[in-house]
Amino acid sequence: MSILRPNVLTSAGYIPGEQPTDPTVIKLNTNENPYPPSPKVMDAIRSITPEQLRKYPSPSGQPFREAAAKILGGGNLTPDHILPFNGGDELLSVAIRAAASEHDSVAFLEPSYSLYPVLTEMNGSNALRLPYTINEPLPNANCQLPIDRGHDAPQSAIGNRQSAMPAWRLPDNIESTPAKILLIVNPNAPSGHLDPLDKLSHIAQNFKGLLVIDEAYVDFAPTSAISLVQKHPNVILLRTMSKGYSLAGLRFGYAIAQPALLKQIEKVRDSYPVDAIAIAAATAAISDQAYAKSTWERVIAERTRVAGALQAMGFSMPDSHSNFLLATTPPTAKLSAQQLYESLKSRGILVRWWNLPRISDKIRITIGTPDQNTRLLTELKSLLQ
Amino acid sequence: MSILRPNVLTSAGYIPGEQPTDPTVIKLNTNENPYPPSPKVMDAIRSITPEQLRKYPSPSGQPFREAAAKILGGGNLTPDHILPFNGGDELLSVAIRAAASEHDSVAFLEPSYSLYPVLTEMNGSNALRLPYTINEPLPNANCQLPIDRGHDAPQSAIGNRQSAMPAWRLPDNIESTPAKILLIVNPNAPSGHLDPLDKLSHIAQNFKGLLVIDEAYVDFAPTSAISLVQKHPNVILLRTMSKGYSLAGLRFGYAIAQPALLKQIEKVRDSYPVDAIAIAAATAAISDQAYAKSTWERVIAERTRVAGALQAMGFSMPDSHSNFLLATTPPTAKLSAQQLYESLKSRGILVRWWNLPRISDKIRITIGTPDQNTRLLTELKSLLQ
Repeated sequence: MSILRPNVLTSAGYIPGEQPTDPTVIKLNTNENPYPPSPKVMDAIRSITPEQLRKYPSPSGQPFREAAAKILGGGNLTPDHILPFNGGDELLSVAIRAAASEHDSVAFLEPSYSLYPVLTEMNGSNALRLPYTINEPLPNANCQLPIDRGHDAPQSAIGNRQSAMPAWRLPDNIESTPAKILLIVNPNAPSGHLDPLDKLSHIAQNFKGLLVIDEAYVDFAPTSAISLVQKHPNVILLRTMSKGYSLAGLRFGYAIAQPALLKQIEKVRDSYPVDAIAIAAATAAISDQAYAKSTWERVIAERTRVAGALQAMGFSMPDSHSNFLLATTPPTAKLSAQQLYESLKSRGILVRWWNLPRISDKIRITIGTPDQNTRLLTELKSLLQ
Repeated sequence: MSILRPNVLTSAGYIPGEQPTDPTVIKLNTNENPYPPSPKVMDAIRSITPEQLRKYPSPSGQPFREAAAKILGGGNLTPDHILPFNGGDELLSVAIRAAASEHDSVAFLEPSYSLYPVLTEMNGSNALRLPYTINEPLPNANCQLPIDRGHDAPQSAIGNRQSAMPAWRLPDNIESTPAKILLIVNPNAPSGHLDPLDKLSHIAQNFKGLLVIDEAYVDFAPTSAISLVQKHPNVILLRTMSKGYSLAGLRFGYAIAQPALLKQIEKVRDSYPVDAIAIAAATAAISDQAYAKSTWERVIAERTRVAGALQAMGFSMPDSHSNFLLATTPPTAKLSAQQLYESLKSRGILVRWWNLPRISDKIRITIGTPDQNTRLLTELKSLLQ
C-alpha cells in the first residue's frame, strides 16, 4: 500500500458515532434533532420529477442560496454570500485545503470537533492544538445547590446553578496563532458552551489567516456571529441543515462569507456538490422557519430540564447553548464515564463517550424528546444508586 | 485574498457544461442519459420517511454496497470491494489527495476529462499531460464511403466506415510514467473511443502508482476493466449512476477496488458522503438492471444512426463506445466548430465545444432521444448547406 501518502496510511481516520439499525434504541449520541423535518420537506421530496434526476443539478444550488440570503440576511446578504456543500463536513475539508498547503499549520481548539485533526492530517498539514482553559468546579460544590425542581424550574434558578459549573475560556492571544486557518466551533462541541461575540470579533480583526466559525449548533443558541461576515473578509461561517432543521440524513451544509472569498472557495469544492433532491428539500426546510423554531424551542426547554436533573444527581456541565450536554460524572459516582456509557448502551440508550484527554470523565448527551430524556434520567438514577 | 493558497487563487476552476433552465432546449452537452430513471427509483424516493432524514445515513452506504457487489461481481466481489461517493467527481478528488502530495506528479491523458487538471492544480501537484496519438483521417477520405443508410445500417457497414475515421492510441511506455497516480477515462471523454483491455492490464501490472480507470461511460461499451480489480492491488475503477442509470441529478458514484485499498481511500473521503435518499435511489436503480439495459440499448442504436448520418455529412469521429460523439467538422464546411456550436445554440440545441488544443475543431454531441437526434441532424444539415 506504499502507493498512498504516508499521512493517509498512518491516520486512524474519523470514527463517526454509532448508527444503530435497531429502531428501538434511544439515540442520544450524534446530536440529531429529536423532531422530524418540516412536512414541507416531505412535500418537496415527493414533488421531485424524473427529469430533475436525469439532468445535472444547479452547480451552485441557486434556489437554496436565494432562499437562505433572504431569510438570514435581514437585507444584508445576497445569494452570493451563501455557498452550499454536501454537509458541513465538506465545507471544513474544502476550507482547510483552500487555505493550508502541506506542512502549513491548521489551528483548532481542544476539546472540539474531532474531525478537525483528521482533516488536518489528511491534508498533510501541522495541527496546532489550542487548549481551552477549563475551570472545573470544586468537588461537591453541587451539594449546596437546590434539589432538582424539574420541568418548572425557572431559568434564574438554572442560571444560579451554572455559577458552580465548569467554565470554558478561549486561550489568551489566540488571534496571534501562526496558522493559515483557525477553526472555532461555536457553540462548542462537545461542551455546548458559547464563546462571546466580542472575543470572536477581536480574533477576526487580528488573526492573519482564514477564520472558520463553525455554527453547526447555532440554532439552539441565543446569538450568532453572522454580523462579522460583513466586516471581515477572512471570516467564513459554517451552517448545517443536519441539526436545526432535522436533516442529518440529507447532507446539506452551507457557508456564509463575503462573495469574493466564496468565489475562491468554490473552486476547491466539487463541481456539483449538492443534488437536486437535497437542494429542493433544504430550500423547503429553511423556508419553513416557524416549524424549525418550534423544534428549537422544545429542545431548549428540555435542555434546561435535563441539565437541572443531571445537576441534582451530582453531574456538572458547562452552560449549554446547543442541543447536547457534556456531563462530568459526579465525584461520588461508583461508575466511571465509560462505565456509564456502556451501561446505558446495554439498556438501549446510546450516548457519546470519548477516550480522549480532558473529556474521558464525561459523557455527551444529545437532548431527545421528553419521553426519551425521562427514560435516560431514570436509567442514570438507577445506575448511580 | 492572500489568505488562500496561491494555486487556488491562480486557478480558473472547473467550468461545468451549461445547465439551461429553459425546458424546451435540447440538451446534448453534458452526456446525460436521454431516458428517465427506473420507475423503481421514484418509488424508493417516495418511500423515504421523515425518520430517515432526521438521522445520519449509513456512513458506508451499506445497502448500495451489498446490491452492487451482488449485481456486478459474478460471485467475485464483496460489499467491501465497493465504496460510494458523492458523484464520481468526489472519488477523483479523493483518489488524487490519497495518492499525491503537493509537488508530486499526477498523470492523465490529453484530451480527456477536463476536471483532472483542475483537481491536480487544487492539490498543488504537478500535472503530467500525456498526449493521445490521434491519427486523423486524410481530408475527403469520407468521400469514398457509402452514403448514410440511416437507422437500418448494419454494424458491419459502420465498422468499415470507421477505418477512415480518427484513431486514438495511448502513448507507448505510458506505464513508465513517473507519477503517483494515473487517470485514464475509458471509454474516453470527450472522444468515446475505447482503450483495449490488454493494454490497461499491462499498465496496471507495470505502473508504480495508483491507476484510476474512470469508467463513467462503461455502460455504453462492450467491455469493462472490472476483471483487473482482482489481479491488481493498485487499480481503482470509477463508476457513476449519472449516465447509465439516468441519475445525474442525484450525485452518486462508486469505486470498485480491493478492500485493503478502499479501507485507506475511505479515510480521505467525507465521513457521510452519500445521503439517505441517494443511497435508497441508487440501490433501486442498480437493482433494476433490465430497465437500465433497455436505455443503454436504445442509446447505442441511436449512436450508430447519428454517427452514420454525421459521417454522410462529412464529419469524422472515432468509433464511440459511450453516449456521445466527438465530431470533427467537415473539411469543406464553411462554419468552424465554434460557429456550429453557437449556431446550434441559437436554434435551441446545446452541444459542447471547447477552446482547447487538438479539439477546438470538434463538437461533442450527447446522444439524445430519436426525436432530439433527428432535430439535431436536420439543423446541422441546414447549417452546412
